[in-house]
Amino acid sequence: MTPFAAGTSLEGHAVPVSGGISLDMTRMDAILELRPDDLQMDVEPGVVGTAIDEAAAPHGLFFPPLPSSGAISTIGGMIATAASGMKTVKYGEVADWILELEVVLADGTVLTVGSRAVKTSSGYNLKDLVVGSEGTLAVVTRATLRLTGLPAQVRGGRAVFATLEDATAAVADAVRSGLDVATIELIDEWCAAMANAYSGTDLPDRPTVFLEFHADHGVDEEVAFCREVFEAHGVERFEIGDRDAMADLWRARRDLTYAILAHDPQLTPIHPGDVTVPIGSLGTIIDYAGSLADETGLLVPCFGHAGDGNLHYTVLVDRDDPEAVERGERVYRQIVERAIELGGTATGEHGIGLGKREYLVAEHGTAAVELMRTIKQAFDPRGTLNPGKILPEVETEHGAAPPSAA
Amino acid sequence: MTPFAAGTSLEGHAVPVSGGISLDMTRMDAILELRPDDLQMDVEPGVVGTAIDEAAAPHGLFFPPLPSSGAISTIGGMIATAASGMKTVKYGEVADWILELEVVLADGTVLTVGSRAVKTSSGYNLKDLVVGSEGTLAVVTRATLRLTGLPAQVRGGRAVFATLEDATAAVADAVRSGLDVATIELIDEWCAAMANAYSGTDLPDRPTVFLEFHADHGVDEEVAFCREVFEAHGVERFEIGDRDAMADLWRARRDLTYAILAHDPQLTPIHPGDVTVPIGSLGTIIDYAGSLADETGLLVPCFGHAGDGNLHYTVLVDRDDPEAVERGERVYRQIVERAIELGGTATGEHGIGLGKREYLVAEHGTAAVELMRTIKQAFDPRGTLNPGKILPEVETEHGAAPPSAA
Repeated sequence: MTPFAAGTSLEGHAVPVSGGISLDMTRMDAILELRPDDLQMDVEPGVVGTAIDEAAAPHGLFFPPLPSSGAISTIGGMIATAASGMKTVKYGEVADWILELEVVLADGTVLTVGSRAVKTSSGYNLKDLVVGSEGTLAVVTRATLRLTGLPAQVRGGRAVFATLEDATAAVADAVRSGLDVATIELIDEWCAAMANAYSGTDLPDRPTVFLEFHADHGVDEEVAFCREVFEAHGVERFEIGDRDAMADLWRARRDLTYAILAHDPQLTPIHPGDVTVPIGSLGTIIDYAGSLADETGLLVPCFGHAGDGNLHYTVLVDRDDPEAVERGERVYRQIVERAIELGGTATGEHGIGLGKREYLVAEHGTAAVELMRTIKQAFDPRGTLNPGKILPEVETEHGAAPPSAA
Repeated sequence: MTPFAAGTSLEGHAVPVSGGISLDMTRMDAILELRPDDLQMDVEPGVVGTAIDEAAAPHGLFFPPLPSSGAISTIGGMIATAASGMKTVKYGEVADWILELEVVLADGTVLTVGSRAVKTSSGYNLKDLVVGSEGTLAVVTRATLRLTGLPAQVRGGRAVFATLEDATAAVADAVRSGLDVATIELIDEWCAAMANAYSGTDLPDRPTVFLEFHADHGVDEEVAFCREVFEAHGVERFEIGDRDAMADLWRARRDLTYAILAHDPQLTPIHPGDVTVPIGSLGTIIDYAGSLADETGLLVPCFGHAGDGNLHYTVLVDRDDPEAVERGERVYRQIVERAIELGGTATGEHGIGLGKREYLVAEHGTAAVELMRTIKQAFDPRGTLNPGKILPEVETEHGAAPPSAA
């Protein structure tokens, strides 16, 4: 039984690798109740991200952790993958904004986890165990979301740097200095060029930081503080305006995944995804990706939610060149391994799915992965729910067990 | 094996009800490493809360979710009970500021859960399963804490209301209106009187809201906005100054637990603790506590982190009067049950321990509690770790099983 909704996952979560039932959640798309006095909304899992904000907006509210894919991805998928978004640097992840879940276990038992109180210390935290469990422990059938007030002041814009090192150092310094920023996104010069080609924008072919500031008061002082930090890192252009003036900038950023795919029909990506490291190591991991690109002669465009230490990278290769594919896969793997060495994670916001199972032990150690297996066994002893995901296949004396036994 | 440290728990967590080993963690009190560039600190579990802030302050950093007991309680206890504090309304709970934990399982296995990256979607979230598990799943031996920058602007003070209804409505309205407040604490007129008697302060005998505002810019505009909201609810006095001027106010608030205990030597509390409800129901639960006090003639002083919908209440009774004790226990229970009916939780920040096991099924349902038992079984099949806590005793045909089997 493999839950399916928008199919936007990068890690193959919704692929029923062992056959069985593909459980389409897309028609469970009702907004069940909005309680503005509680700052809460109950939704079904098939609700698309932007529909949440559209329902909340008349009450002056919004759901801050929506991922960039929010116009097409569903809240069920965001919960399953422990997603986050461009505003996570200020507001936190999807998990932080989920209060209560109704879930169905493998044996059909329906139960509620979490609480509608904004904090609870009652019993084991089953809610955050279900969040990010990728449909392998339970199927979510209702979620109570926490909302917050739309900010009174919004400013947005971009900062252009001569080098990626300058841009990265500026972002890390801003975060360390306590800059109150709602979004701080970094794209490298390759991404800028690809965005221009795809979205018809006019970005300089330079490493660029996209910014959004939210405040009730004093937003311009915060922008000025940001400018000061960025000037210490040699920012070349620092252009901030109101949100509307920046709409095409944001479109270019949101469409970046497609822009990279469309760049050259002969080049296809090795497994787009993300890693995340402590903010002090952001420069190290971005430098490392650049040095691997130089070494191998491959295109490795980089972007990401830099304020969270989050790096999205795509290794582009000619699929008809097996040697290039192998080089590309090595680069892809080396970046994940380096992120783990730096104390980071193989996946900041896209989950493990099929694609990153091989890194689970490297990141968490054998004992933690064994504990995860025990939990899977406790929830779903017959392996009914989304078999083959998250947990690596167990090596037996007869070779790897089939995914359904993982 | 029952972990013990400061012994400040309200729910009997550190009491070794089945005998065995009381594991004193207080000498594991080293601050292991401070990484200001990552906004992180590694600590041992016996570190006292204020020691964290003292080590962080020279770097302009602090650990925002410290509970009011932070001067005596340890980080290990805060993690075990999923604690929170006076600044949780702005910054979140202790759980939100724990990145990684080193833990020891019942069989001696040492492992690391969580990540030093500020976000991860890699595998099951074991970290938030250990947080709040009250030493029943694993013993924490190291924690990586996330820190943040000290605010540039701080204001603090109090608002005095004629009635508790006004004060409660003002707090709920402020939260709904998106007031950016770091602390918003409510005390009723009984607490004000008891605080004056105990701490020698000069609070009006009136429902009072204590406030603290943190900002980098625009703090006075935020204070003015708060005043406007409170004036719509008939605030009688609204006095805000810098933090130092308000030090004795805060001392009175922090000492409130002791003030209530000291009020009348003949009166002892029935089980002090907290419940938490959705913010729209804060008025309902406070009214309910008041009506029970009126009905029974008992003193039920109320205070709490009102901005989180959090109510601390203490039912004071004459222990020599069995009928009063029974009445008091009924009041105590009725408030917990009402909080659960309102979609809230039996314990917002003090855990279940021994004291609230009887409410676990009412709050979560049988199926969720069974799942919690399965998780306990998976982590600790022999019931070695803190037996008798969290999970209610299982009724068998021979009567209740001993706590060690729970």
